[in-house]
Amino acid sequence: MVRYKATISYDGYAFAGFQRQPHARSVQEEFEKTLTQINRGAPLVVHGAGRTDSGVHAFGQVLHFDLPEKRDVEKLRFALDTQTPEDIDVIAVEEVGDDFHARYSKHSKTYEFLVDIGRPKNPMMRHYATHYPYPLDIGLIEKALPQLVGKHDFTGFTASGTSVEDKVRTITEASLKVDAAKNLLIFTFSGNGFLYKQIRNMVGTLLKIGNGRMPVEQIEKILVQKDRNLAGPTAAPNGLYLKEIRYEE
Amino acid sequence: MVRYKATISYDGYAFAGFQRQPHARSVQEEFEKTLTQINRGAPLVVHGAGRTDSGVHAFGQVLHFDLPEKRDVEKLRFALDTQTPEDIDVIAVEEVGDDFHARYSKHSKTYEFLVDIGRPKNPMMRHYATHYPYPLDIGLIEKALPQLVGKHDFTGFTASGTSVEDKVRTITEASLKVDAAKNLLIFTFSGNGFLYKQIRNMVGTLLKIGNGRMPVEQIEKILVQKDRNLAGPTAAPNGLYLKEIRYEE
Repeated sequence: MVRYKATISYDGYAFAGFQRQPHARSVQEEFEKTLTQINRGAPLVVHGAGRTDSGVHAFGQVLHFDLPEKRDVEKLRFALDTQTPEDIDVIAVEEVGDDFHARYSKHSKTYEFLVDIGRPKNPMMRHYATHYPYPLDIGLIEKALPQLVGKHDFTGFTASGTSVEDKVRTITEASLKVDAAKNLLIFTFSGNGFLYKQIRNMVGTLLKIGNGRMPVEQIEKILVQKDRNLAGPTAAPNGLYLKEIRYEE
Repeated sequence: MVRYKATISYDGYAFAGFQRQPHARSVQEEFEKTLTQINRGAPLVVHGAGRTDSGVHAFGQVLHFDLPEKRDVEKLRFALDTQTPEDIDVIAVEEVGDDFHARYSKHSKTYEFLVDIGRPKNPMMRHYATHYPYPLDIGLIEKALPQLVGKHDFTGFTASGTSVEDKVRTITEASLKVDAAKNLLIFTFSGNGFLYKQIRNMVGTLLKIGNGRMPVEQIEKILVQKDRNLAGPTAAPNGLYLKEIRYEE
């Protein structure tokens, strides 16, 4: 048995999310179907690092799986890339030790969130950025962002009723770039893990702050009071990208 | 009767092209349907500047149409923008004189052509750039491009059997930008008009030159000998964008 790590990108638009589920198209199921073909019909299971939601995209999702025999990694990558559907691409495949686990090996993640601030929107980006056509003071968002950086209890930014007990996470980067030519805001968030809907709730809150309907200090208030009702709305999934996963050592 | 000029953008992916045709979804038909609703059900016809092909996108297509009465242009723009399908957006509407004709008033056009040179491709761009995964010497393409600039008979770059008699056109810009971070080539072509499939044939030829399978001087040979068989293959429509139309005076 040889363990392989694969880095993949996908267009989340036509998927009900990463994770396998009945009666819905998932990235995991499509990848497993292809892997099973390559494994001469013997079913195989893959483990993903991040369970992206319906409509969320990925440029650097990481998976691992075991094959009964050693393979040439570039041939394996090419076979997986060409045999998966056109909305999944396989960027890299490498052999890893038995102790590597895409989800449980220690890692940090980077997400990007794209906001189309054009009026009207860019029709080519309607599945790939969230349209926000209201006035925004970028300076207010830039003042709010640093409050997210550091070790915090993010209870106020996750969906209520999540089963995860420990809601303390560390954010190492929370930044914003403005691509004026393309009317795009590009948020970047890096950290050791993110709770369910955390980034979409943070972005929804930041946009409300930029629109002047919440004070800049609201972020700290949400973190301290741990109350989801104090945060802004959940931003749509179409702007969210799982960008990169970095494993330790 | 008041004449209006509208500037629109659209995602060409789900259209059989700009022009109305039986049994296929066209930009013209969708726009006319919306305009007819706004005109209280009385049918109206629109005239477009460029008849983009199936799969070709637009950021600055121009249309004109006549309404029986004067309208507030921003309200009209907003109504058209919100009532057209989500893959059409209405950027601007302005009142123009009766002598303005989107197609026949003298104008120049700018097209862009996007090539995804990533290996593997970017799945988010698969409908919005043409994937070219083969080796390319950008220097060769840059040497070939200036031969296209100027007044030439472009017979060798159009589809054979076109009914247009005069195939002389003037190209004022033929350039290439490389976005290394995004693995994108962005070709820009401006001129007083382009023949059917001319840009896609020019791009197909330029890529073949960049790939080393045609000499740099092939462009001039095609222009002089006016022979379609000397040119490269027609590039796919998904990379082509009608970017801007500028009217004289």
